[in-house]
Amino acid sequence: MFDVKSVDETLRIIEKNFNGYQMEYEEISIVEANDRILYEDIISQDNIPSFNRSSVDGYAVISSDTFGASDAIPAQLNIVGEVKMGEKPSFSIKPGETTYIPTGGELPLNTDGVVMIEYTENFDDGDIFINKACSPGSNVVYKGDDVVVGAEVIKSGTLLKPQDIGLLAALGHSTIQVKKKLRVGIVSTGDEIVGISSIPVGAQVRDINSYALYAVVETPFTTPVSYGIVHDDYETLKKVVEKAYSECDVVLISGGSSVGQKDVTVDVIDDLGTPGVLVHGIAVKPGKPTIIGKIGEKAVMGLPGHPASAFVVCNIFVTHLIDTMLGIGKRTIPAVHGEMASNYPSNNGREEYLPVRIEKEANRTLIYPVHGKSSLISILSSSSGYVHISRGSEGLNNGEAREVVLWK
Amino acid sequence: MFDVKSVDETLRIIEKNFNGYQMEYEEISIVEANDRILYEDIISQDNIPSFNRSSVDGYAVISSDTFGASDAIPAQLNIVGEVKMGEKPSFSIKPGETTYIPTGGELPLNTDGVVMIEYTENFDDGDIFINKACSPGSNVVYKGDDVVVGAEVIKSGTLLKPQDIGLLAALGHSTIQVKKKLRVGIVSTGDEIVGISSIPVGAQVRDINSYALYAVVETPFTTPVSYGIVHDDYETLKKVVEKAYSECDVVLISGGSSVGQKDVTVDVIDDLGTPGVLVHGIAVKPGKPTIIGKIGEKAVMGLPGHPASAFVVCNIFVTHLIDTMLGIGKRTIPAVHGEMASNYPSNNGREEYLPVRIEKEANRTLIYPVHGKSSLISILSSSSGYVHISRGSEGLNNGEAREVVLWK
Repeated sequence: MFDVKSVDETLRIIEKNFNGYQMEYEEISIVEANDRILYEDIISQDNIPSFNRSSVDGYAVISSDTFGASDAIPAQLNIVGEVKMGEKPSFSIKPGETTYIPTGGELPLNTDGVVMIEYTENFDDGDIFINKACSPGSNVVYKGDDVVVGAEVIKSGTLLKPQDIGLLAALGHSTIQVKKKLRVGIVSTGDEIVGISSIPVGAQVRDINSYALYAVVETPFTTPVSYGIVHDDYETLKKVVEKAYSECDVVLISGGSSVGQKDVTVDVIDDLGTPGVLVHGIAVKPGKPTIIGKIGEKAVMGLPGHPASAFVVCNIFVTHLIDTMLGIGKRTIPAVHGEMASNYPSNNGREEYLPVRIEKEANRTLIYPVHGKSSLISILSSSSGYVHISRGSEGLNNGEAREVVLWK
Repeated sequence: MFDVKSVDETLRIIEKNFNGYQMEYEEISIVEANDRILYEDIISQDNIPSFNRSSVDGYAVISSDTFGASDAIPAQLNIVGEVKMGEKPSFSIKPGETTYIPTGGELPLNTDGVVMIEYTENFDDGDIFINKACSPGSNVVYKGDDVVVGAEVIKSGTLLKPQDIGLLAALGHSTIQVKKKLRVGIVSTGDEIVGISSIPVGAQVRDINSYALYAVVETPFTTPVSYGIVHDDYETLKKVVEKAYSECDVVLISGGSSVGQKDVTVDVIDDLGTPGVLVHGIAVKPGKPTIIGKIGEKAVMGLPGHPASAFVVCNIFVTHLIDTMLGIGKRTIPAVHGEMASNYPSNNGREEYLPVRIEKEANRTLIYPVHGKSSLISILSSSSGYVHISRGSEGLNNGEAREVVLWK
């Protein structure tokens, strides 16, 4: 019924269906705004700086007074007044005069340049020697040089970083409007799954996914919500997923998505509403039995039950879904560049996200595949990221340059 | 009195003086453990899996029963029982017999392999045809394959990531011991600085550093603490810094570190205790007037007052200090690789951290310098990271491949 989709097709389906997802806003302090998403355009109400400011410690001058000055023939100027930090100078400078000015001080009227203190000689007789010509505007940050009144300085939709928060502080914004946090519900299914504080009996296993997926999706712009462990039957799962759907923007259901298992997840998603299941099966290793559904405007995904597979799918597809819904999906993701420390064979027509370990050795960055049976969580814990192997690739060669994207 | 240090010398001084800083621990839920630093060695009390587990949906067999089987000459086996998820099979398999087993199910006694359902044919008469030979161990994850009892799985000092949290869940740890958060006090000095909700009068400017530095140093493993704005006199500053020092592991004082200003910061740091100031001045652009002090085992740093300079110093030196004190300073930092989109001239013997903007253009990643007067916060806000230019470099050339480290 559903064709298996390629990774690229899947990413495009996510973008086509979830781009422009509507979020409400909330007003928060800029102290809490790092990595939140701005919901308003920030227009400057001020000039920054609000006055002509010296960018060095030195002497404010009328620049033409210094033209031609040098060590051999210094300009001699009479010192008047003193510029104090934070205060508007109460005096102006006339030709032949100068005044001491600290970094950040306001230039007195008529001055248009500052000579660094290193290029002056003070004989404490009320005059000072200037040993270097100063051109107009030298060492001056003019009023509005940084930001002018009316400038649009940060656009709505920006993922705010510390440098933006500094700018918001400069402009006097103690609070701002940001997108509310996207709520991501997490449901763990499987008759064999027990809570992590339980001692498994028989062939039970502890619930890894509720914790690992929670940690992957938790960011300053999301709120993960755990809905616990649900047995693998249609009615029970439907009830929990309906609750999660009503309370969250995204619902992740791990387990029960493999054809051949009691495959209730896909039915539950399809029965929740329309348009229903968009993707059932991705040509990717690991993570083939992944389901992506859209119910109304929200997303409901089925992830593999294998913890390592669910983890990789969450890193690649769920984070792309979240970023797309929030409008921050075009960010450039940094990576570690290194060279493969061993061969790794081809993956037979499925794209692969290969867990790897990174080791520094002198000036080389070595990349070691840590492959193993896909269900091994210890393998994953020993890796710090993945190498992406494309569909047509014949595998990786020892010494080949590759980039490692760190796990979220 | 102090020589200006190179960037490398400064980083080594930080490592030599602050490596091995002692932190207390606290016990927290693994739900809160992402990006916290483990304080105990995690030794497995369990085998994972705790039973021989099938990694596919299929039929559990005694592998020798299938040797030689093919499409043309299938092995015919009698179906007995059924393996249920989470339950120990109550039956064993005799030669000539097989049983259905789901992914994650426990292998019944005597079986040593699983044939994927795709390679079987079921005529619903109680027997099944196996079309492919199954070697011993095929599609089986043996008891302890993932983790064996007694294995040291995560070392004390590890910066925990979601994949580690999955492993902790698998091993039944609902709580763990982690290093307490490093407390970083932030003091903003300067007679011209006013609170961000104020309307600056005269030559006053709003307090950018208290907010931008806070955002840079805030991580899951640190707690920033703001001590507000302090006027630039020795007694007032000393009192506030003493309080911050008594309550924090690191104290950052921005402003007042430039020679020629009312230079009280260095005196305050030196008078706090021994060994006192270690570095006063770094050959770096921006950030030359940086001070690094050690009082007892704690760190007290003086940062430039210029917001953009303070921001860069905080990104490079403060984060290295924090990581060193917490024992996580050897991490590999990912970067964005691209090519310079313009020339940038040499920096005359000082290492430089050049703010840059990254743009994607078809398949190219272009790096644009966003240089300007060092006090411009708008320039910084328009950048997403920096290019490091070494001391001996003659500058950057258009088209040159470089890496961009994103701002914290």
